[in-house]
Amino acid sequence: MKVVPRSKVIYSFSPRRKPVEYVKPQELVLLETEDALGGQVKDEAVSLSKLDWAKVDGATGPLFVKNAEPEDTLVVEILDIRINEEGVMVTVPKSGVLGGKRFRASTKIVKISRGYVNFERGIRVKANPMIGTIGVSPESGSIPSGFPGRHGGNMDVKELTAGSRLYLPVFTKGALFAAGDLHAVQADGELCVSSVEVAGEVLLRFNLVKGKRPDWPVLESRDSYAILTCGDTLDEATISAADSAVRALMREYDWPFEKAYMFGSLAVNLEINQVVDPKKGVRAVISKEFISRDSLLT
Amino acid sequence: MKVVPRSKVIYSFSPRRKPVEYVKPQELVLLETEDALGGQVKDEAVSLSKLDWAKVDGATGPLFVKNAEPEDTLVVEILDIRINEEGVMVTVPKSGVLGGKRFRASTKIVKISRGYVNFERGIRVKANPMIGTIGVSPESGSIPSGFPGRHGGNMDVKELTAGSRLYLPVFTKGALFAAGDLHAVQADGELCVSSVEVAGEVLLRFNLVKGKRPDWPVLESRDSYAILTCGDTLDEATISAADSAVRALMREYDWPFEKAYMFGSLAVNLEINQVVDPKKGVRAVISKEFISRDSLLT
Repeated sequence: MKVVPRSKVIYSFSPRRKPVEYVKPQELVLLETEDALGGQVKDEAVSLSKLDWAKVDGATGPLFVKNAEPEDTLVVEILDIRINEEGVMVTVPKSGVLGGKRFRASTKIVKISRGYVNFERGIRVKANPMIGTIGVSPESGSIPSGFPGRHGGNMDVKELTAGSRLYLPVFTKGALFAAGDLHAVQADGELCVSSVEVAGEVLLRFNLVKGKRPDWPVLESRDSYAILTCGDTLDEATISAADSAVRALMREYDWPFEKAYMFGSLAVNLEINQVVDPKKGVRAVISKEFISRDSLLT
Repeated sequence: MKVVPRSKVIYSFSPRRKPVEYVKPQELVLLETEDALGGQVKDEAVSLSKLDWAKVDGATGPLFVKNAEPEDTLVVEILDIRINEEGVMVTVPKSGVLGGKRFRASTKIVKISRGYVNFERGIRVKANPMIGTIGVSPESGSIPSGFPGRHGGNMDVKELTAGSRLYLPVFTKGALFAAGDLHAVQADGELCVSSVEVAGEVLLRFNLVKGKRPDWPVLESRDSYAILTCGDTLDEATISAADSAVRALMREYDWPFEKAYMFGSLAVNLEINQVVDPKKGVRAVISKEFISRDSLLT
């Protein structure tokens, strides 16, 4: 098993980043990850104005996956997510879906124990550890690790949990994979801009599908596939999600556009990932009853 | 039991509409409803260009609910939804979330049997009968029955099924309730603009909460409450949904804004109702574990 320490952190996805580790398909990989605030908030007295914001939203990596080439799909099996016993939440003025309101910066340390996040005395939320940021390098240029995109990145999808599988398009030799930003729990929307941000470890295994790739990242859960899109607005993200889903249905059933479009009203659920990152994220969820993996990769 | 025939149809919600029936709280009411296309499409040869579009998106009513006054809440228990065995779907050029693409008008008749919608030979979707349009009169003016709003209306929420309960703000004496536009099944988004549009019957019972009302319609399901908002864009709708949810949490726990905002990231799921009506619809879903009905009515 390869272990990548949390000191190996990047703040942007780029083909110019030097790999910190080389891994083979099928090899077990353990990534240690820092929390999204770079581990800078350990008690509630820390003022957010004192934070080094250059150390926020990091991801551990990048890893060079042997034999991964542009036009391939990198399959990421999320085998396990272990989170620390303490996480942090923040409100940041002008941030989150209600950023237009006036409110104060605030910080909250929350304890996680026995599968629950203890928000307040008597108020606890079932933990559902998930990966906020997971992606590969774009073909060129550089994408800050706080952004979501076709390369994955800061998608903040609550279904990105242990037992799921992510299909990422490969744009550059070796894929240059990185992940981080674990959440102990997050609701769809992540409305205040942070969740329970927590350090931890992620156990992964890579695989490749050669010569074909999805147009957006695809998440495989037990019963469904979800196409993960984003856009400057939620409306834009839903158009991309619906478009990608309808084209997949056309391939699956050899249907004309109109029939696939109709069926989408019955079988494609448009759901919200998050509404607070630099791009808003949506997923088009289709039951495995109605779509196969092959129709999602072209 | 009062029975209201499907011939009693309105195409807008308005305080000037004359009630077609007077009902008391707790009385059983059976509404017969026409499909959203006004029953005009009985076979696939019907050209959409020949439809009378003034007869589309109707709702059965309005009913005058005795003792309902402005500032009250009309509680609508959805006891049963019975749908016919045949429904219709359409694609309409320039309509739906992919209305920017070029495609043809098309019509499809689908059979519904034994709890399934038979879309194609071998491709069937589990039926989940729901009410597309359900609402009350606004305080003044007139709102077309194809629009969603604070008065309810064409919200197209897939969770509006038998066994659920809807809380509508009352704006005018008697509430002037109407409902229609049943769907045999609809996914979140209703992406092509239509679902399986079907005629049927809805069994309802009304109740009142005097002197308080929700700021948006609230849907009660078995385990959760959902605040149903809408806006010119999905982004606008999510801001309204998050705002209403955070204010409800502030009331529930006597929390300052910042704490309720944080908790929203963990416990308020922002979900999509539909992305294709004149206003886009979103719901903020909160488990009953975390919110009580009283905090949702003010």
